[in-house]
Amino acid sequence: MANLGPGRPRLTQRRRQGTTPRAEILDAAAELFTTKGYANTSTRAVADAVGIRQASLYHHFAAKDDILDALLAQTIAGPAELARRMAEEPDAAVTKLYALALFDVRQLRAARWNLGALYLLPELRTERFATFRRHRDDLREHYELLAADSAAAAGQPGDVAILPFRLVETVIGIRSDEESAAAETERLIPDAIVRIVGHPGDPAAVRTAAQALLIRLGDIVPESD
Amino acid sequence: MANLGPGRPRLTQRRRQGTTPRAEILDAAAELFTTKGYANTSTRAVADAVGIRQASLYHHFAAKDDILDALLAQTIAGPAELARRMAEEPDAAVTKLYALALFDVRQLRAARWNLGALYLLPELRTERFATFRRHRDDLREHYELLAADSAAAAGQPGDVAILPFRLVETVIGIRSDEESAAAETERLIPDAIVRIVGHPGDPAAVRTAAQALLIRLGDIVPESD
Repeated sequence: MANLGPGRPRLTQRRRQGTTPRAEILDAAAELFTTKGYANTSTRAVADAVGIRQASLYHHFAAKDDILDALLAQTIAGPAELARRMAEEPDAAVTKLYALALFDVRQLRAARWNLGALYLLPELRTERFATFRRHRDDLREHYELLAADSAAAAGQPGDVAILPFRLVETVIGIRSDEESAAAETERLIPDAIVRIVGHPGDPAAVRTAAQALLIRLGDIVPESD
Repeated sequence: MANLGPGRPRLTQRRRQGTTPRAEILDAAAELFTTKGYANTSTRAVADAVGIRQASLYHHFAAKDDILDALLAQTIAGPAELARRMAEEPDAAVTKLYALALFDVRQLRAARWNLGALYLLPELRTERFATFRRHRDDLREHYELLAADSAAAAGQPGDVAILPFRLVETVIGIRSDEESAAAETERLIPDAIVRIVGHPGDPAAVRTAAQALLIRLGDIVPESD
């Protein structure tokens, strides 16, 4: 999607996170959308924040909603890739569920901007964002299948399966209220998920197995869009 | 705060939820803020949706942020009042925690508009909403104290105490994604909280005690602002 061809000369020095103009635009937009609001931010303001002309921005993104779509995709690309790669692994469902929750909490915590706060925008319910919603629903389904299998393995009813995905996303609210989510959320949230699905063992043992699984799978580098 | 004195004649028949002009303005604004977005909604649009003149709206609210502030206050008034009234009761902390979560999930589910979706607005981090943020922090602290006491009674570490408040608020994301939160969330979420704080007994027993406590306390009618 990105057009990395020559644009106009920069108005100012690069001062944005990112190694390409496209990455700088995304970083600037992420800051403005999360701190000023999506509706309150124009593509002109994004271009100004990057230090490029608005016409140069349009080389990369035809409209503001294309920028939002690319940013939202970033928030789920990593855990979605992990879920795909875990499918072939022989580990117990509760181990995979822990690994997915741990990885996802970690990336939601570490992301430079709290982009998950944009999930509740009314704009996301429009047709324009149907593809993003479908991808996020796919990720949610991965969580729900792993949680249902974990509950079944523990002899528990599967109706709790809706909760782990939601508990992971509470990192977004914590960041919004407290600027950052404490490092301990990377243990507290996956541990709580183990308890919610009724797993009888010590969450610490599940954690150890999940960490080994993540190491075995290596770095999760999502396909770029 | 409300000025219920005579305004101008209505342009159209009342068609809003609410028995007073003020309540109708709040209902119309809640619909527009949650479906079109806060930044995308003018006070003029709110007045139009009620069928009153903009000048009449200003009898009740001096500015758009005053409407938002009143709506946000509604989202926490009930559980905050319940937390106050439970303070004197002799029940176990885990029973009070269950009662608070059950009551709060119920009101977040039942509210006509999903106002919690507005918690993540960047506007809420401004000085204008410091009072609302303080009141919500007070409610969060009630949850955290009850959760810490519940964990201590179960011989568990208290660091999980941050999670119950967050898990209750996942109703907001569920409503945003699925239009409504299923009735079973009124059982699933408080039951999950009982497991998270490490309570060794059956959540169903805690639920029975919590329901009895809620009945004993009678209807929770928050003070109107």
